Amino acid sequence: MVDDLSRSAAAERARTRTFLNAQCSVVYSADIYCMSRIRSRIEASFNAQGLMSTLGAQLVHVEDGEVHISLPYDTRLSQQHGYAHAGAITSVVDSACGYAALTKAPEDHEVVTVEFKVNFVRPAVGERFLAIGKVRTSGRLVAVCTGEVRAETSNQSTVVALMQATMMHVRRDA
Amino acid sequence: MVDDLSRSAAAERARTRTFLNAQCSVVYSADIYCMSRIRSRIEASFNAQGLMSTLGAQLVHVEDGEVHISLPYDTRLSQQHGYAHAGAITSVVDSACGYAALTKAPEDHEVVTVEFKVNFVRPAVGERFLAIGKVRTSGRLVAVCTGEVRAETSNQSTVVALMQATMMHVRRDA
Amino acid sequence: MVDDLSRSAAAERARTRTFLNAQCSVVYSADIYCMSRIRSRIEASFNAQGLMSTLGAQLVHVEDGEVHISLPYDTRLSQQHGYAHAGAITSVVDSACGYAALTKAPEDHEVVTVEFKVNFVRPAVGERFLAIGKVRTSGRLVAVCTGEVRAETSNQSTVVALMQATMMHVRRDA
Amino acid sequence: MVDDLSRSAAAERARTRTFLNAQCSVVYSADIYCMSRIRSRIEASFNAQGLMSTLGAQLVHVEDGEVHISLPYDTRLSQQHGYAHAGAITSVVDSACGYAALTKAPEDHEVVTVEFKVNFVRPAVGERFLAIGKVRTSGRLVAVCTGEVRAETSNQSTVVALMQATMMHVRRDA
Repeated sequence: MVDDLSRSAAAERARTRTFLNAQCSVVYSADIYCMSRIRSRIEASFNAQGLMSTLGAQLVHVEDGEVHISLPYDTRLSQQHGYAHAGAITSVVDSACGYAALTKAPEDHEVVTVEFKVNFVRPAVGERFLAIGKVRTSGRLVAVCTGEVRAETSNQSTVVALMQATMMHVRRDA
Repeated sequence: MVDDLSRSAAAERARTRTFLNAQCSVVYSADIYCMSRIRSRIEASFNAQGLMSTLGAQLVHVEDGEVHISLPYDTRLSQQHGYAHAGAITSVVDSACGYAALTKAPEDHEVVTVEFKVNFVRPAVGERFLAIGKVRTSGRLVAVCTGEVRAETSNQSTVVALMQATMMHVRRDA
Repeated sequence: MVDDLSRSAAAERARTRTFLNAQCSVVYSADIYCMSRIRSRIEASFNAQGLMSTLGAQLVHVEDGEVHISLPYDTRLSQQHGYAHAGAITSVVDSACGYAALTKAPEDHEVVTVEFKVNFVRPAVGERFLAIGKVRTSGRLVAVCTGEVRAETSNQSTVVALMQATMMHVRRDA
Repeated sequence: MVDDLSRSAAAERARTRTFLNAQCSVVYSADIYCMSRIRSRIEASFNAQGLMSTLGAQLVHVEDGEVHISLPYDTRLSQQHGYAHAGAITSVVDSACGYAALTKAPEDHEVVTVEFKVNFVRPAVGERFLAIGKVRTSGRLVAVCTGEVRAETSNQSTVVALMQATMMHVRRDA
C-alpha cells in the first residue's frame, strides 16, 4: 500500500524539495496537472498552517492523489495518559487528506474539509506518527479520501487511526 | 440548549473552582456520582493533557452529562487562510465529549474515544471557540455524545462544527 | 424536542393531507417557500421511492426543517435476531433527513445524500419506528441534518439510532 | 483488491456452498477458526435476516476477514429518481461488514453494529450491486471494517459507496 515507509523523513524531505525546485514546463492536458507546481503550492499552504508548526508536523511526501505528514511524538501533544491526543492525530491526517484532494482539484480551486470520521483503533504510542491521506474518488465538486495514521518506532509501524473524509473543491478568490 | 453562554469564561472558572474545592460527603446510590468528585477528577485529567495546554484550551464548565471547553483564537492554531484549523476545533470538542461521557461512567472506569465524526459547517472565525460536549445515551460499555463548537465574538455565537462521537468505558488499572 | 410524538400516525397523516391540498397563494420573499407546495413536492417524491413502499414506511409529518417517517415493524425488516435491521432503520432516517433538507433548499434544487453516520444505541425493538430528520445548518450548497429513530410501543418511545448527515443541493434538470 | 469480481454470482454461490458443506475436522488453535464452520454459521445467520430476503440480496463470498453480498437492482429498491436508495445500498454493505467481522470474532460471540459512516460517491445505477466488507482491525471487543459497494453491469464495475464501520463482539447467550 505504502511502499516508502522505511525511508527516513529526512530523505523524504530532500526528495520532495528536489521536486519542488523543478520547473514545470509541460502540461499534457487540461485534466493533468504539473505535479511540481502542485507540490510547491501544497508546501506553501502547509507552511502557512500555524497549527502544523505548533504541533511540530512535517510535510514529507506529495504525489498525485496521496500525501504524507510526519508528527514526532512530544509530551506537548499528549492526552491524560501520555499517549498522543486524538485531536493531534486527527489534525495531521485531516491535512494529509486535504492536500491529497488538492492534487486532484482544478488549478483555480481550494479544498475545504466538509466532514470526516476517524476510528482510533489502538493507543497512539510511538516515537513519531505518519499520516497518509489518499484520494478514493474525486468529482467536480467533492472528493472522498481515506487516511490512516501509523505509530512508528525504529523497527515497527502500526495503524492507530483510520479516517474517511469528504472534501469540497471551492473556487479561489481572485 | 445552552443557557450559560453569556457568562464570562472567568466567572465560569471561578464557579467551577468552588465546586471542585467542595468536599463530597454523600453518595446517594451506587449509580449516582458525587459531582464534585467528578469535577476534580476531570480537572486533574484535563490538566494532564499536554495538547490542551499547547492549544491554550481551558475547561470552563462541568455538569452531569455536559462539559464545556473554551479555546481562544491564536494564529498558532490556524490553517492556511488564518481560520482555526479543523484539527484544533476537533481536539477541544473531542475532549469535551469525552469528559461529558466520564460524568456518566462508573467510578472505576476511564473513557476512551472509539471514533467520532465532525461536520465543519462554517469557517472557524472568532475571538474564541466554545466546545460543548453532551451525552446522548450512556450504557454499560458505550456512550454516544454529540458536540458542537461555537465561534464567539463580543456579541455573537455561531455554530461552526457538529460532532457525533462514540466513547467506551474501560476499567482503570489498579 | 419533538412535541407531537403522542399524536397518532393517522391523525398526523390527516393533518398533512389537509396542508397538502391547500393552495399556495402567497410567497413572502425569494427565500421563503410556500410550505404547502413543498409538502406536495415531498409527498410526490416519497411516493416515488420504491424502497419506502417495499419497507412499508409512511410519510407522517412535514414542517419547515423537520420531517417524520413512520415504519411499522415487520419480520420482513429483521436482522438475524428478529430486531429491525440497521439498514431498515437507516433507510427511513436517511429519507427523513433528506426531505428535511429539501424544505430549506432553493425551489429549483434537489437534495442528494453526500454521506451519513449512524450510531445504533439500543436494539431496534418496537411495534413501529419513528424517524425524525432535522436541519441543523443549511447553506447554499450543503445542509447538515441530525436524525433520530425512536422505537415506539403503546406507552413508550425510546431512541434507538442517531444520525448526522451531509446533504447537497443539486440543480434539477429542466 | 478484490480478485474475483468477474466470477458470476451463480459460480460464487456454488463455490460457497461446497465450502459450507465441507466438514471441519481440525482446529489449529484457540484463536484460529475453522472457516467452513464460520461459513455455515454466517449462511444460517444471513438466511435469518428478513431484510436481506425482502431486498433480494444474496451472500456470495465468505473468507477470513472478507464477505461479499450481491444485490440485483429492482425498482422495489429505488429512490425517487429510480436509482437504488442509499438505504438499500447501506443495508447490504452493513451486513457484509458485520459478517466480515464475525469471521474474526471469538466463537462464542456475536457481532453488533455500533455505528457506521457511508459516503455515496456516485448515483447507484447498475444491473446489480456488489457489497464488499473487510476487516481492517479486530481487537478483543471492537472491530473496524471498511466496505465498498460496486455497481455492476455486464462489462463494468464502479464504486458507488464507501463505508467505515465499528462492530462490537458480544457474548452469545447460552
